[in-house]
Amino acid sequence: MTTGEPSVLALDCMGGDHGPSVVVPGAAIALSRHPGLMFELYGNGPAIEQELARHPALKARSSVHHTDLTIAMDAKPSQALRRGRGSSMWLAIEAVKKGQAQFAVSAGNTGALMALSLMILRAIPGIDRPALAGQWPTISEPSIVLDVGATIGTTARELSDFALMGAAMARAMFGIERPTVGLLNVGTEEIKGNEEVKQAHAWLKQVDLDIDYRGFVEGDQIGQRVVDVVVVEGFAGNIALKTAEGTAKQIATYLKEAMTSSALAKTGALLAKGGFQVLKRRMDPRRVNGGTFLGLNGIVIKSHGGTDAEGFASAIEVGYGMARRDIVEQIKAGVASFHSKLEQITAAEQTAPTGAGAATGQARASN
Amino acid sequence: MTTGEPSVLALDCMGGDHGPSVVVPGAAIALSRHPGLMFELYGNGPAIEQELARHPALKARSSVHHTDLTIAMDAKPSQALRRGRGSSMWLAIEAVKKGQAQFAVSAGNTGALMALSLMILRAIPGIDRPALAGQWPTISEPSIVLDVGATIGTTARELSDFALMGAAMARAMFGIERPTVGLLNVGTEEIKGNEEVKQAHAWLKQVDLDIDYRGFVEGDQIGQRVVDVVVVEGFAGNIALKTAEGTAKQIATYLKEAMTSSALAKTGALLAKGGFQVLKRRMDPRRVNGGTFLGLNGIVIKSHGGTDAEGFASAIEVGYGMARRDIVEQIKAGVASFHSKLEQITAAEQTAPTGAGAATGQARASN
Repeated sequence: MTTGEPSVLALDCMGGDHGPSVVVPGAAIALSRHPGLMFELYGNGPAIEQELARHPALKARSSVHHTDLTIAMDAKPSQALRRGRGSSMWLAIEAVKKGQAQFAVSAGNTGALMALSLMILRAIPGIDRPALAGQWPTISEPSIVLDVGATIGTTARELSDFALMGAAMARAMFGIERPTVGLLNVGTEEIKGNEEVKQAHAWLKQVDLDIDYRGFVEGDQIGQRVVDVVVVEGFAGNIALKTAEGTAKQIATYLKEAMTSSALAKTGALLAKGGFQVLKRRMDPRRVNGGTFLGLNGIVIKSHGGTDAEGFASAIEVGYGMARRDIVEQIKAGVASFHSKLEQITAAEQTAPTGAGAATGQARASN
Repeated sequence: MTTGEPSVLALDCMGGDHGPSVVVPGAAIALSRHPGLMFELYGNGPAIEQELARHPALKARSSVHHTDLTIAMDAKPSQALRRGRGSSMWLAIEAVKKGQAQFAVSAGNTGALMALSLMILRAIPGIDRPALAGQWPTISEPSIVLDVGATIGTTARELSDFALMGAAMARAMFGIERPTVGLLNVGTEEIKGNEEVKQAHAWLKQVDLDIDYRGFVEGDQIGQRVVDVVVVEGFAGNIALKTAEGTAKQIATYLKEAMTSSALAKTGALLAKGGFQVLKRRMDPRRVNGGTFLGLNGIVIKSHGGTDAEGFASAIEVGYGMARRDIVEQIKAGVASFHSKLEQITAAEQTAPTGAGAATGQARASN
């Protein structure tokens, strides 16, 4: 990894619902924003070339690497690991591993992308399981929420690591030096929650970190953007994310029914068309496209599978920001420093066994 | 508990943001629906009498029990247990315990209501921790979701118990004999999730129960009402519920901004006023008011604290339906039968240790 403006990125052209017909125009938009970029494109050569023909400026700055192998959108992670070698997704990640690209972007299968990224790039020292960090639309700027499903049964140490890693992403994306971080819980009082969030809360308060830790936040506060980064256990985080998506869909259904409930409502809705377009833009998932796996030796961005060129360009932008800020080195240094401070605390607690902050294992609590 | 039409209910008149000025008119609405009802009203006597003066029909069928003691909306459960004896909430629950009322309704502090209900009524045999079941608005009828925060770190057996208990509530509320039940998870494949959901899934598939078990559901399916009952671990369930509430609030903000974004949008919104009222009604939390603690020797309904008389009447309706169907006896019988079947399975597994469905304890899985 080199610091400064990223110069080369690797794209899995076969991922997502639309393949090269979205990825290539998306790359063209990214090039218009960052004219110094070069592109390594992986996938079906003729299909990519056909799209590139419409984007001569991009074509001049791209290398096409043909492969017949594609990871299906419904492939299991285990299948991807066994049979994914040489696929467009694999090759894009490998380009990062080999230093041929500063980051990779794929709109492919999330589980496969996670599994291949972990196998090829490996986790950084001290991290067992990387987190999947997503952008969450809020009433103002998006916030970062992690983990949204990569780690099930996240431990207290992992939750604390996620706070650091999410903050690094917030620095890269929002240019905030000391991002605010909250821990998602079932209440904001210290007695609330399971043992993992209580222990992580104690550590994040106690250890001097380069973040502005704000304590517990609740589910209804995410959309109000009370913090830049929301840390949550992967099972609950995935359910929260999908529940929010489902609720948005549900309200859209209500709205449609309401606006066709009478002739007058229909006329009003027609007049207010511009207003509804404003609403549609605000709820447009392309605005917040680009999740990432944090805790790897390299940057791999996951784009929504159903996005369009504009959305894919947003995902590239996320990777660009993270590569420019050299987020991998930042996370490595942060995690190493945090873990060494944690060891000191644990050692101190062992000599004073009645001290605060005890067990870190899985435990039950009847809040 | 007696079966058939409930005749007496107990009301905590001091709970919620508005006390007797909502509870008493709410009771009057309930009486208009069920003219055979009698009411035991607990709280500040003069304040209750003042409200009753406006509702002579209700007054004729009510007994007022004065107490000066009220549980504050921000009291901790431990405070409620220590100092709650003789409060309006306590007395209403105690009336159920003594058989003086078939169910109790309170709009008071959830944690306190839970703690007092558990202490006074006790859990039914085989249940360690009752669940808090909520109604979840969907695109059609509400569904029942449990647990939404009473049990943190719900075990596989508890999740299975919740399936039975939620189904009993669905029978009472919707009149469906064999309710459909889903287990909330991070994916619908069998390999997904933590050990608890996998084990509960195995049991719910294997054991012959009086429910229509449909397997895993995801967060975005709750609002689509794919099942009558959604079962989820309490930490994730509470976060999901609050996230859905937050998302609804967030979209309401978007909508307001969009409809005031131009003069034309404002005019259109004015014309479509009737349509927006339809929307407002659909999103009205009063429509789905009334949660409950399942697994107790008695019925206690939790109303939203901020509800109005109409909403409070809905909460009474939930209790009425549950008492009419004698849900407590139904749950007792269901749990006893399920646990005995489970013991047979466990015994069979011990003689054949390589069989399906192994560990039930807390465990980590890297889905």
